[in-house]
Amino acid sequence: MKKVALIMGSDSDLPIVQKAIDTLKDLNIPYEVHVFSAHRTPAQAKEFSERAEENGFGVIIAAAGMAAHLAGAIAANTTLPVIGIPCKSNTLDGIDALLSTVQMPSGIPVATVAINGAVNAALLSAQILALSDKDLSDRLKEKRRKDEKAVVEKDAKISKEFN
Amino acid sequence: MKKVALIMGSDSDLPIVQKAIDTLKDLNIPYEVHVFSAHRTPAQAKEFSERAEENGFGVIIAAAGMAAHLAGAIAANTTLPVIGIPCKSNTLDGIDALLSTVQMPSGIPVATVAINGAVNAALLSAQILALSDKDLSDRLKEKRRKDEKAVVEKDAKISKEFN
Amino acid sequence: MKKVALIMGSDSDLPIVQKAIDTLKDLNIPYEVHVFSAHRTPAQAKEFSERAEENGFGVIIAAAGMAAHLAGAIAANTTLPVIGIPCKSNTLDGIDALLSTVQMPSGIPVATVAINGAVNAALLSAQILALSDKDLSDRLKEKRRKDEKAVVEKDAKISKEFN
Amino acid sequence: MKKVALIMGSDSDLPIVQKAIDTLKDLNIPYEVHVFSAHRTPAQAKEFSERAEENGFGVIIAAAGMAAHLAGAIAANTTLPVIGIPCKSNTLDGIDALLSTVQMPSGIPVATVAINGAVNAALLSAQILALSDKDLSDRLKEKRRKDEKAVVEKDAKISKEFN
Amino acid sequence: MKKVALIMGSDSDLPIVQKAIDTLKDLNIPYEVHVFSAHRTPAQAKEFSERAEENGFGVIIAAAGMAAHLAGAIAANTTLPVIGIPCKSNTLDGIDALLSTVQMPSGIPVATVAINGAVNAALLSAQILALSDKDLSDRLKEKRRKDEKAVVEKDAKISKEFN
Amino acid sequence: MKKVALIMGSDSDLPIVQKAIDTLKDLNIPYEVHVFSAHRTPAQAKEFSERAEENGFGVIIAAAGMAAHLAGAIAANTTLPVIGIPCKSNTLDGIDALLSTVQMPSGIPVATVAINGAVNAALLSAQILALSDKDLSDRLKEKRRKDEKAVVEKDAKISKEFN
Amino acid sequence: MKKVALIMGSDSDLPIVQKAIDTLKDLNIPYEVHVFSAHRTPAQAKEFSERAEENGFGVIIAAAGMAAHLAGAIAANTTLPVIGIPCKSNTLDGIDALLSTVQMPSGIPVATVAINGAVNAALLSAQILALSDKDLSDRLKEKRRKDEKAVVEKDAKISKEFN
Amino acid sequence: MKKVALIMGSDSDLPIVQKAIDTLKDLNIPYEVHVFSAHRTPAQAKEFSERAEENGFGVIIAAAGMAAHLAGAIAANTTLPVIGIPCKSNTLDGIDALLSTVQMPSGIPVATVAINGAVNAALLSAQILALSDKDLSDRLKEKRRKDEKAVVEKDAKISKEFN
Repeated sequence: MKKVALIMGSDSDLPIVQKAIDTLKDLNIPYEVHVFSAHRTPAQAKEFSERAEENGFGVIIAAAGMAAHLAGAIAANTTLPVIGIPCKSNTLDGIDALLSTVQMPSGIPVATVAINGAVNAALLSAQILALSDKDLSDRLKEKRRKDEKAVVEKDAKISKEFN
Repeated sequence: MKKVALIMGSDSDLPIVQKAIDTLKDLNIPYEVHVFSAHRTPAQAKEFSERAEENGFGVIIAAAGMAAHLAGAIAANTTLPVIGIPCKSNTLDGIDALLSTVQMPSGIPVATVAINGAVNAALLSAQILALSDKDLSDRLKEKRRKDEKAVVEKDAKISKEFN
Repeated sequence: MKKVALIMGSDSDLPIVQKAIDTLKDLNIPYEVHVFSAHRTPAQAKEFSERAEENGFGVIIAAAGMAAHLAGAIAANTTLPVIGIPCKSNTLDGIDALLSTVQMPSGIPVATVAINGAVNAALLSAQILALSDKDLSDRLKEKRRKDEKAVVEKDAKISKEFN
Repeated sequence: MKKVALIMGSDSDLPIVQKAIDTLKDLNIPYEVHVFSAHRTPAQAKEFSERAEENGFGVIIAAAGMAAHLAGAIAANTTLPVIGIPCKSNTLDGIDALLSTVQMPSGIPVATVAINGAVNAALLSAQILALSDKDLSDRLKEKRRKDEKAVVEKDAKISKEFN
Repeated sequence: MKKVALIMGSDSDLPIVQKAIDTLKDLNIPYEVHVFSAHRTPAQAKEFSERAEENGFGVIIAAAGMAAHLAGAIAANTTLPVIGIPCKSNTLDGIDALLSTVQMPSGIPVATVAINGAVNAALLSAQILALSDKDLSDRLKEKRRKDEKAVVEKDAKISKEFN
Repeated sequence: MKKVALIMGSDSDLPIVQKAIDTLKDLNIPYEVHVFSAHRTPAQAKEFSERAEENGFGVIIAAAGMAAHLAGAIAANTTLPVIGIPCKSNTLDGIDALLSTVQMPSGIPVATVAINGAVNAALLSAQILALSDKDLSDRLKEKRRKDEKAVVEKDAKISKEFN
Repeated sequence: MKKVALIMGSDSDLPIVQKAIDTLKDLNIPYEVHVFSAHRTPAQAKEFSERAEENGFGVIIAAAGMAAHLAGAIAANTTLPVIGIPCKSNTLDGIDALLSTVQMPSGIPVATVAINGAVNAALLSAQILALSDKDLSDRLKEKRRKDEKAVVEKDAKISKEFN
Repeated sequence: MKKVALIMGSDSDLPIVQKAIDTLKDLNIPYEVHVFSAHRTPAQAKEFSERAEENGFGVIIAAAGMAAHLAGAIAANTTLPVIGIPCKSNTLDGIDALLSTVQMPSGIPVATVAINGAVNAALLSAQILALSDKDLSDRLKEKRRKDEKAVVEKDAKISKEFN
C-alpha cells in the first residue's frame, strides 16, 4: 500500500498535524512524518518531493502557516497529489496561509483543505488511496457510517432533552 | 480507466469549467459534464454522487459560485475524492465561494483549488488517477516538462530582449 | 400554532443556539431542537426539511459554522422560510459562516442574521409567525416596549452618574 | 392578502430592486414601491414603518448600499418581518452594505439576503406570506418545480453536448 | 461654551466611552452622557438629536458596535457635526462597526475615528469647539506639547537603555 | 469667515476632490485647493499645516489613496480639525486608504469620511464652520430640506410608476 | 557596480515589471531580466539565486501574482536582499499575492513593496546599492528633488486654477 | 561599519522590536534604538531621518501599529533604505498596519516585512549591509546554515518519534 507523507513547515505545527496522524493511524494507513521548511531547508524539501513517488508515497500532505509556500514547493517537484493544510498563526487568523496555499497558478495544483483542517487532509489522502484499495474504501465508508451514527445519537439526545 | 465527473452548479459557470474540460481532453482522460445545483436540483446531485463510484467515476470536480455548497453536498454522498472550484461571481471577487468551498468541517473533505482554477482542478484529478495509471502519470510528467520548457523559452526570449 | 424547528449542525453549537431556545420559550412559541449535519447526516436533514411543513412547522432556524451549508441545504428542500445563524468557529471570526449562509444563489433564499445572532433568529421567526397570530404579535410588541424601557432606564442611570 | 413593501434607499438602487418587483409580479403578490432614505428622509421612513402593519403590509423589503442603515431603521419601528438587500456600490464590492445590514444587535432582526439578492428577497417575502396562504404556497412550489426542471434541461443539453 | 454629547448605543460600550469622558474632563469641556439605541430607542435618539443644537450642544459623539447605525441616525436629525466611534464587538474585530459608521452616503457625513478610538473622538470634538474658543485652543496646544514631551522622554529613556 | 483648505496628495485625485470643491462653492464657503504630498513634498505639507490657523483656515480636508498618510501628517502639525478622504486606487478597492486614514493612534484625530466621500467631507467642514456662523447653518439646513424634498419627489414618482 | 536581477514569475507580469526596468534604466543601474517560475521552473530559480551573488548581482527583485512564492523561493537560496512585488491578478485584487509575499516566516525576509509597486521596487534596489555608490546616491537625491519639484509645480498650477 | 537605526512609534512596541535588537546583537551589527512618533513627534522623526545618512546609519527600521505612517514618514526624508514592521494592535489583527506600511505610492519605497516580523527586519538590514561587508555576509551565511541544521535536527527527531 502506498504511504502518506506528512510534512510540516515547523515543529510548532505539530499540534495541528497530530490530528492528521491520528486519523491515518485509525484508518491503518502507513505514513511518515517530516519537518521540512520551504525556506530554511528547501533542498531537503525538494529532494524528498522528487523521490517521494519512487519511495512508495502516494500522497503528500503539507502543513504550513503565514506565507505558506510548503505545499506549493513540494507540488512543484512531484506529480503526486499534494494536499495543503493552511495553519493559523499569531496574526491574520490563517487567511494568509489559506491564500498562500490555495491560490496556486495554473499547472501546479495543491488540494487545499480548511485552515487547521488536518483531519480532513488525512481523510482526503485516504479517499485518494482508496481508489485502488477496496479495503481502505470500506474502512472509509464504515467511518462515515459511524460519524453519521454519532450525529444521529446526538440528535436523539438533544431532541429528548429539549423537546 | 476511471472517469472524471465535471459538475457545475449553473450553466453560467461553463466558461470557467471549459478549461477543465480542455485539460482532461488533452490528457486523454474520460469525463462526463453535468449541471447539478446543490439547491435547485439537490436530488439529482445526491443521486449522481451516491452512484458515482459504481458508475465508474474516480474523481468528481464541482464548480460553483457565491455560497458554493455544491462540492460539499456532493462530498457528503460519496467517499470518492471531490475537488472544488470556487467561481468568482459579480460581487466579493470569489472570496465567498472560496470560503464556502474550502472551510469544510471535519469528516467531509473537499480538495479546493484556486478561485476559477479549473485547469488545476483537472490536473489534480489527473494526478489522483495517475496513482494507478502509469501511462497517465507519464503524460502528466511530459506535460510538466513542456510547461517547464515553455517558461525556459520565455526566459530566453525576454533575457534576449532586455539584457 | 405552527412550531419553530431549531437545527444545529453540531452539538458544539448548542451554547449559541441556547439563546434562541430561551427566546422562543419566553415568547411561548412551540419548538423542536435537532442536530442534523448537512454533510454527516444529509439524509436526515433532507427528510426533516421535506416533511417540516406537513409536520406543523412554520419556520426553520439553522445554525452552523465554517462552510455553513446547513441552512441552504434545508432551504433547498422546503418552501418554509429558513433562517440561518452563521456561527463563529476557531478561525476567521465567523466571516466564512456568514458568507456561506447569506450568499445564496437566486431561487433559494436564506434569511440570514448576524454571526452568532441566535436571539434575533428566534425573534425573526416570531415576527414571521406573528403575521397570523395576534397574541404573539402583542407579545412581541410588549417585548419591544420592555427592551425600550430597559434602555431608557440605563440612560437615566448613566445620565445621572455622569452628568 | 397582505402586501409587500419594497423600499429602496435611493432611486439609483432601482435596477437591483426591479428584479424583486418582477418576482412579486410573477407570484401575483400585491406590493408597493417606495424611495425612503434612512438619512435624508428618516421621518418618512419612520412613519411608513410604524403604519405598515395597519396599512395591510405583511413584509417589508429594504434595499440600500454603503453604510446600509435602511433595513435596520425600518425594523426598529415595526414588528413586521423586514428583509434587507445589501446593494453593491462603487467601492468595497458590497461588503460594507452586507455587514451594515446583517450585523444587527440583539432585539431588532433584519432577514438579510445576498448582496444584490433582490430575487431571493422577493421569494423570502413570498415564503413568509405563504404560511397563511395555501394558493401562494402552491405557486411557490410550482416555481420550485419549474426552476428544477430548467436545471435538469440544462444538464440534459450540456450532457449531450460534452459527453 | 457649547457642550459635547456623548451617546453610546448600549451601556456595554461604557468602558470604551469612558476614555472620551476622561479626555473631555481633562480639557474642561462640558458634556452630557447618554444611552440611546438607534434600534431600541429610536424615538429618544431622534428627539435628542433634533433638539441638541437648541439645547446648547456643539458636537455629538456616538459610539456603537456591530451594524453601528447610531452615529448615522443622529446625523440624519441635526446639522451639528457628529463623530462616530466604531466599537469592537465579539466577532469581526470591529470592521463591521467601522464600515457601518464611515461609509455614509452623500448628504449626511459622520466624522469617523478609529475602532474604539474614544480619546480621539473627544479630541476631535475639542478641536472643533476650539475654533471659536481661544482658551480651549490653547489647552489643546498645551496637551500636544505634553504628549510630544512624553514621547521625547521615552525616547531619551530607551536611547539610554539600549544605545 | 474661516476658509477651508482642500489638499490632495496627487493631482490624479482631482476628479474626486472636485465634488468637494463644488459643494463648498454651492455653500458659499471660501476655500483654497492645494497639492501636497506627505511623502514627496513633506516640507510643504508641514509648513502649510503649521500656518493654516494663522492664515485664516478653520478646517483642512486631505484626500489621498493607498497608504494614505496625508491627513495624518497634516493633523500632526495643527490643532485645526482635519478631515480625511480615503481615495480608491487601482488595487484593494480603497480599503488600504480607509484604514491608513481612520486608524490614527490616540492623540492625533482625523475625521474620516467614506471612501471617495468628497461631498460629505465638504459638508462636514461646513457643519463645523456653521457652529459659529448662523448664516451657514441656515444654508446647511436649507440644503437638507432640498435633499429631503428631492427624495420625497423621487418617492412620489416611483410610487406612481409602480403602484 | 553590482547588478539588479528582475525576475518575473510569468511573462504576463511584464507590463508591471516594465516600470521597474524603466526606473533602473533612468538611474543607470545595470540589470538583467528573467522569467523563472517558483513552481514550473523551480530548478532554474534555485540555480539563479544560488549563483546570483557570485554572478555580480547585489539585489534581486521578484514579481509574482496569486500564491506568489517566487520572492520567498529565491530568498531561501541567497543572502542577497530580495524585493518582492505582489502582482494583482484576476481575482482578489492582489491581496493573495501581497500576503503570500510579505508574511514570510522568521529567517528568510522578503522586502515587500505595494501591489504592482514596480517603480518602488526599483527605487528600493537603487537605495540599497547606493549605500556603497556615492554617484547613485546623488542620482537618487536628484530624482527626489525632481519629484518634489513636479508636485510643487502641480500645486502651483492647481492653486492658480482654483483659488 | 554603518549602523542600523531601530525606531518605534511608541514604547509599547518594544516587546516586538526587542527581537530585532536581539538579532542585530547576535550579528554584531551596531545599532541605535529610538522612540519617534510620526504624529506626536514629527519634528524629531524628520530631523533624525534627514541626518541619518551623515550620522553613519545605513538602514532604518521603523515599527508602528494602526495607521502606521512612521516608516513612510521617515522614508520621505532620506534615501537610505527604510524597513517597515507593521505591528499588530488591539483591533484588526495588524492588517491596518500592514496596508499602511506597504501600500506606499510611487517614489518613496518602504521595504515591508511580515506583521510583527522584527527578526526578519533585522535580518534584511543585515543582508543590505552585508553587500559591502564580507564578514557580515559570512555571519549571515553561517546563521542560515545553523537555522537549516536546526530544522534538519527537528526533522530527525520527529521522524524518529513518529515513523
